[in-house]
Amino acid sequence: MERIFINELNDCINQKVLLRGWVHKITDLSHVVFIKLRDKSGVIQLVCEKEQIEDLRLENAVEVVGKVCSNEKAPGKIEVLVEKFEILGSTYYDKLPFEINSFKNKAALETQLDHRTIALRRPEIRAIFKIQSEIETAFRDYLKERNFEQIHTAKIIDSSTEGGSEMFTINYFDRRSFLAQSPQFYKQMMVGAGFERVFEIGHAYRAELHNTWRHLNEYVSLDVEMGFIKDEFELMDLEEGFINYLFNHLNKVCKKELEMYKIDLPNEVFIPRITLQEAHAILLDKYNKKSPIGNIDAEGEVLISKYVKEKYNCDFVFLTKYPVSKRPMYTMTDDENKELTKSFDLIYDGLEITTGGQRINDYEMLKENIIKFGLNPEEFDFYLETFKYGMPPHGGFAIGLERLTMKILKLTNIREATLIPRDMKRLTP
Amino acid sequence: MERIFINELNDCINQKVLLRGWVHKITDLSHVVFIKLRDKSGVIQLVCEKEQIEDLRLENAVEVVGKVCSNEKAPGKIEVLVEKFEILGSTYYDKLPFEINSFKNKAALETQLDHRTIALRRPEIRAIFKIQSEIETAFRDYLKERNFEQIHTAKIIDSSTEGGSEMFTINYFDRRSFLAQSPQFYKQMMVGAGFERVFEIGHAYRAELHNTWRHLNEYVSLDVEMGFIKDEFELMDLEEGFINYLFNHLNKVCKKELEMYKIDLPNEVFIPRITLQEAHAILLDKYNKKSPIGNIDAEGEVLISKYVKEKYNCDFVFLTKYPVSKRPMYTMTDDENKELTKSFDLIYDGLEITTGGQRINDYEMLKENIIKFGLNPEEFDFYLETFKYGMPPHGGFAIGLERLTMKILKLTNIREATLIPRDMKRLTP
Repeated sequence: MERIFINELNDCINQKVLLRGWVHKITDLSHVVFIKLRDKSGVIQLVCEKEQIEDLRLENAVEVVGKVCSNEKAPGKIEVLVEKFEILGSTYYDKLPFEINSFKNKAALETQLDHRTIALRRPEIRAIFKIQSEIETAFRDYLKERNFEQIHTAKIIDSSTEGGSEMFTINYFDRRSFLAQSPQFYKQMMVGAGFERVFEIGHAYRAELHNTWRHLNEYVSLDVEMGFIKDEFELMDLEEGFINYLFNHLNKVCKKELEMYKIDLPNEVFIPRITLQEAHAILLDKYNKKSPIGNIDAEGEVLISKYVKEKYNCDFVFLTKYPVSKRPMYTMTDDENKELTKSFDLIYDGLEITTGGQRINDYEMLKENIIKFGLNPEEFDFYLETFKYGMPPHGGFAIGLERLTMKILKLTNIREATLIPRDMKRLTP
Repeated sequence: MERIFINELNDCINQKVLLRGWVHKITDLSHVVFIKLRDKSGVIQLVCEKEQIEDLRLENAVEVVGKVCSNEKAPGKIEVLVEKFEILGSTYYDKLPFEINSFKNKAALETQLDHRTIALRRPEIRAIFKIQSEIETAFRDYLKERNFEQIHTAKIIDSSTEGGSEMFTINYFDRRSFLAQSPQFYKQMMVGAGFERVFEIGHAYRAELHNTWRHLNEYVSLDVEMGFIKDEFELMDLEEGFINYLFNHLNKVCKKELEMYKIDLPNEVFIPRITLQEAHAILLDKYNKKSPIGNIDAEGEVLISKYVKEKYNCDFVFLTKYPVSKRPMYTMTDDENKELTKSFDLIYDGLEITTGGQRINDYEMLKENIIKFGLNPEEFDFYLETFKYGMPPHGGFAIGLERLTMKILKLTNIREATLIPRDMKRLTP
């Protein structure tokens, strides 16, 4: 007999089925025992006789053969009358670290993370990663439809040129090397290599000394780079298109998971574009909030989101035209004001989830800029070479996968959106 | 005007089009100049007047407006009569490091890798990565159709339990940590966490002191783990199904790329399954080849492939039932012979591309085995915990993405199938 998943049972009324999963709950009513069986797709009520389930404990992995019956009183209105019950995975615990089957999740986040695989047995915790995996699917499908190609670039790199002290060092056959902070240089190089349009989904590493609700030291970056663009607004169009594509995709395939978190995603999003200068003026005018020069701080991100939500009913806002001094040396300067750049951030509900922009594509201009930034062009030879052989106008952006997941589900800590998080203190499990 | 790609030109005869790309070849016939324009999708002949293209050099990134015309004599039987020509990306070289437009690729592999982004401008080199990206797509689609979920697990890990000296060390906020050699423990843990069926596409790191045609120190691993399996043969069925799915997918979407390498992939593959013991006997009997105890060496892999190709007309062979002593401590022992395991390798055209098998799922048995292997169970606490709470029978396998790409295209060095390879000597570009 083929095993079927619990979410397929509705089509099997009065049939005999084979189920597999974990013992989620045991309710012993002396004459009969109700068991809730949990598999990756859902939870179902089993009806057993006592002698069928001797020695059964919560979380045993089991195999069940039984008949599917309608029962108005059962949760989901169906249940399975058990004919055969077999334990496939034994238990060796005195007490669970926390309850898995309670209505409310009462365990503290750190405790959940200490026992990550037990915490994930709660369906609504696993749902976060179903959403995350579908974000990736949408990202990939959206870009592939637009002639982008997926790439993988090296994470072990020779130079700390982009990151400096914020990079982790590796002992690479007795050479000091680094964990890549982003695939920035490589994705640009691959545009120049003739792929024109590339994306990468991969780990990025930041040795930042921040241990907050929104920082991870290892995270998944959704990187995009596109050649032959007109300007940075084309990139914002591309990202806005992705957000719309994503929300429609999630509304289609993650209905159940979104409901668990009571999330209602709009089917259409128009993202306002505000220059950083305008944002500063708004913050000062509306909230008496002063911003750091050439940037916006965490409080500013929250307030500008509040403003945009009230004025445009949108959870997103593009902040544009950051000053040259606050952006990396490869950022293209603005056409009209040479102290500004063709760059942008995307703020989502009070949190920056994207940095992007048009890059410098002229070899001489890029080299000069590297010098202007006080850096040594020779250290960038591996990167600069491509620019000698005809580099088209190009640009791109990167989205933090965990940040996007967190914001979509209105989670309060980025670790909730990370299967196995790494922060300054956490290296286990 | 919208830019169109060269491979769409066939539908635009007699229309005015906007093209972008690189100058692949310039043929100056005094009265007229033929230019080959190359974009990510192909190469097309442009017909220009001399004054339109002053200062034009090979590899300039350009934008062209022109009319598409049929011409029996032109390559592909169409060409574009140029009306407007604009340089978008300048060149700053004296001489190209090697020819990009020659019929044969004459540059040595190391030279190509030194100038990776220039080498990739040859369409047939980029084609390798189109194939690679479609291998990933097939892998993902095949598994998602079967209820597998994509995960990302940590690459920075606390313990060197699985790998020992063959792991790279990282300075993680002044703690010694390691780059994961594989997601083995985490993928098993995620099966136990309730995902049941997971896959991961991510980097794996091996600090092996091998610098050969088939070794990389950083590679992409296609990892699968499946809960509630019957035995290791179910895993082989799953992988055989994937190979068939993959070949059909590539035959559909990568026709052009496969033709570039003169590769003819079969639409149906039945993979023979031979025990290691049988393989040893065959090697000795047919080729007078002695094998190392409990394993098969590189020469053996080539010879057993030769045997299987001749006898079964198949490029693949599963070798099964490796001895306990040659497999990791988590490998399930065989039902009949306790000195053997429920494990397998997949050999493809003389090269191992997969290791897999059923794992031990009982906590006590696993703990005992860790001790038997001379290891300390306490160091595996992060891994063992899941096994205390009902771990179903499970198993999986991993495929090296670059090895699979290399073998499909019959490349001779794994670096050819790696965008930015890392080996003992190479850390750039």
